[in-house]
Amino acid sequence: MNLIDAEELARTLDAQDVLAPMRAKFDLPADVTYFDGNSLGPLTLRSREVLHHTIDVEWRERLIRSWNEDWLAMPMRVGNMIAPLIGATQDSVISCDNTSINLHKALMSAVELRPGRTEIVIDINNFPTDIYIAQSVADQHGMTLVAVPAEEIIGAISERTAVVTATHVDYRTAKILDAPAITATAHQHGALMVWDLAHTAGAVPFDVSTLDIDFAVGCGYKYLNGGPGAPAFIYVAPRLLAESGQPLQGWWAHAAPFDFELSFRPAPGISRFLTGTTTVLSMKSLEAALEIFSGVSMADIRAKSIGLTGLFIDLFDAHLAPRGFMLASPRESESRGSHVALGFVGGKALVDKMSAQGVIADFRPPDLMRFGFAPLYNSFGNVVSLVHHLLRP
Amino acid sequence: MNLIDAEELARTLDAQDVLAPMRAKFDLPADVTYFDGNSLGPLTLRSREVLHHTIDVEWRERLIRSWNEDWLAMPMRVGNMIAPLIGATQDSVISCDNTSINLHKALMSAVELRPGRTEIVIDINNFPTDIYIAQSVADQHGMTLVAVPAEEIIGAISERTAVVTATHVDYRTAKILDAPAITATAHQHGALMVWDLAHTAGAVPFDVSTLDIDFAVGCGYKYLNGGPGAPAFIYVAPRLLAESGQPLQGWWAHAAPFDFELSFRPAPGISRFLTGTTTVLSMKSLEAALEIFSGVSMADIRAKSIGLTGLFIDLFDAHLAPRGFMLASPRESESRGSHVALGFVGGKALVDKMSAQGVIADFRPPDLMRFGFAPLYNSFGNVVSLVHHLLRP
Repeated sequence: MNLIDAEELARTLDAQDVLAPMRAKFDLPADVTYFDGNSLGPLTLRSREVLHHTIDVEWRERLIRSWNEDWLAMPMRVGNMIAPLIGATQDSVISCDNTSINLHKALMSAVELRPGRTEIVIDINNFPTDIYIAQSVADQHGMTLVAVPAEEIIGAISERTAVVTATHVDYRTAKILDAPAITATAHQHGALMVWDLAHTAGAVPFDVSTLDIDFAVGCGYKYLNGGPGAPAFIYVAPRLLAESGQPLQGWWAHAAPFDFELSFRPAPGISRFLTGTTTVLSMKSLEAALEIFSGVSMADIRAKSIGLTGLFIDLFDAHLAPRGFMLASPRESESRGSHVALGFVGGKALVDKMSAQGVIADFRPPDLMRFGFAPLYNSFGNVVSLVHHLLRP
Repeated sequence: MNLIDAEELARTLDAQDVLAPMRAKFDLPADVTYFDGNSLGPLTLRSREVLHHTIDVEWRERLIRSWNEDWLAMPMRVGNMIAPLIGATQDSVISCDNTSINLHKALMSAVELRPGRTEIVIDINNFPTDIYIAQSVADQHGMTLVAVPAEEIIGAISERTAVVTATHVDYRTAKILDAPAITATAHQHGALMVWDLAHTAGAVPFDVSTLDIDFAVGCGYKYLNGGPGAPAFIYVAPRLLAESGQPLQGWWAHAAPFDFELSFRPAPGISRFLTGTTTVLSMKSLEAALEIFSGVSMADIRAKSIGLTGLFIDLFDAHLAPRGFMLASPRESESRGSHVALGFVGGKALVDKMSAQGVIADFRPPDLMRFGFAPLYNSFGNVVSLVHHLLRP
């Protein structure tokens, strides 16, 4: 397909796109084409509006009174907005802290629930913070961290395994791991399963309930568009809640935080996974951005995501492969998340050059360019434009 | 002193107040008199300005590029703004997470540095989150949490003690603990010392260097005015840094986070106490608010704080004690932080009634009213006004 035909096709697809109206909810600069929503989602109009209200009314005018009037309930409220995006029931997800901290809680909790077991199994290509956190949990318990490639995870699970953890969509290649098979194998061996949904939530459908996941964590600032460093989230299966604890049991995890009891009594529900005071401004921005998802279906998001990444791979075959670019993401759409990675010697310089022109992607060493295609604001026209820039930066 | 004379005195003191110009940096509503800066500092003009820039320029326009352009350096930058307020050297304080999480890191680190010791000593009147977090650390290590009243801490320290922790200014009574004596006793027995400076930083001078403190943690949203849920901070003595670790070793604690190494290598400096991605919006607000402190001395802040709380106690003696109020804070100014607590049966209803009139204080069960006097924005006139409201709510 030549690029003239591709532009024609993109116009047709954009005209048919049921998600096209969502673009107007984002405040992307006119001189920017953005392919890095997998790292930092852009500003929504609603986030700006809510932040101004939080600053000028809730903080400035209501001051301390806003805690009772609004803020105390926010981690639960935001968790309940995220819940339907990952197939969770209400009151089983809560927003707090960052993904690293939430993974620590999930793994510590899981290990406590499986005393006597000696191994934690992890995807060796997991995002490094997951590996560092898992290593720390293993070290604290004198356990072994078994780090293997994704395709060897199932074979590495045994009766020694306390918990298995992996990221559902690989942060480099966007490869989707086989969550049903890995989870089922973990459970067959009596192990617990912790999924990191950082590159899943808001981009790829997931169903913690159907898959009977034990714990999940994820990120608020990628496809959920919560803003830089937006709070993360944690899911705990309701069947595990009553027996689950976590070591960062600050006052927000207490059954009655404002009774100031001297002994820790965990909250009966998911709020036992909170720690201390939540970051209000950052969480307000996330809450506002999440409103967009109430108007769309994850099925539509997934269909458009496959359309965008599929078009890019078609154009890669015709135009980029001959120029030395290499596809690092899966060809099969069912195995591919919402970004596409290309290996390219000199990729860093190319990403930097495009960025100076307002075409923003990202780069992961040693030579991987990543292009995030976010169905809520990227168009098919953006895809063709990107290929133009990669050919003539 | 009758209240007419008190008003006259307040006018004189306010006219002489070197900190009076600082009031104009805050955006307090005209119909509010605020005595709860010990719970949530008010909005500064600079925080609003910086937040708007962060939203509209750094996030909206620069998008992911802002991480390299500004945000990555922020936790260290903000830490270095807090450092002089607590007597810390540059690069020994970092801003991150919340106080509960930072206390967990400090205690876990301290316990690892004192293997074989079996006790953690804590002030039983510490803020409950500190007790819950310390209990969790003790439980994880099979240690005993020795919780005693502040005046018994020194006697409870022994060769069994790994670490002692207390809050420098009691959250209820504002009583200042004897940091030099407690720290010295801990060190004499080979134990480490962790101070919680939540009600100290920005209100009461403290010197971690002179006192040779091992770890300190503190809060960004009280006297530092960082905004609701602003990130907290942690100090680690430079002499301990190289050998100190902490269990929440996410990628931000790594020596080279963007090299995505598979093994954790702690950063050489204080950033090894970071976890994962920082909350940018909340930290930007804190950074902006901290600018105020570059123009004032902690000695001036302390002098005015003593003046404000002293005037309030004088008026308490004359007008409130006869009406059934009871002083719960120290009379001796050198033992008193920047708030005053009064016991009063029916205190909750009184605080609520005053709040509805824009006179904002807070209440801690069972019957304690707390009045925070923040030298940067409270005036001596405010003190007299408060007494009027307490007498005729």
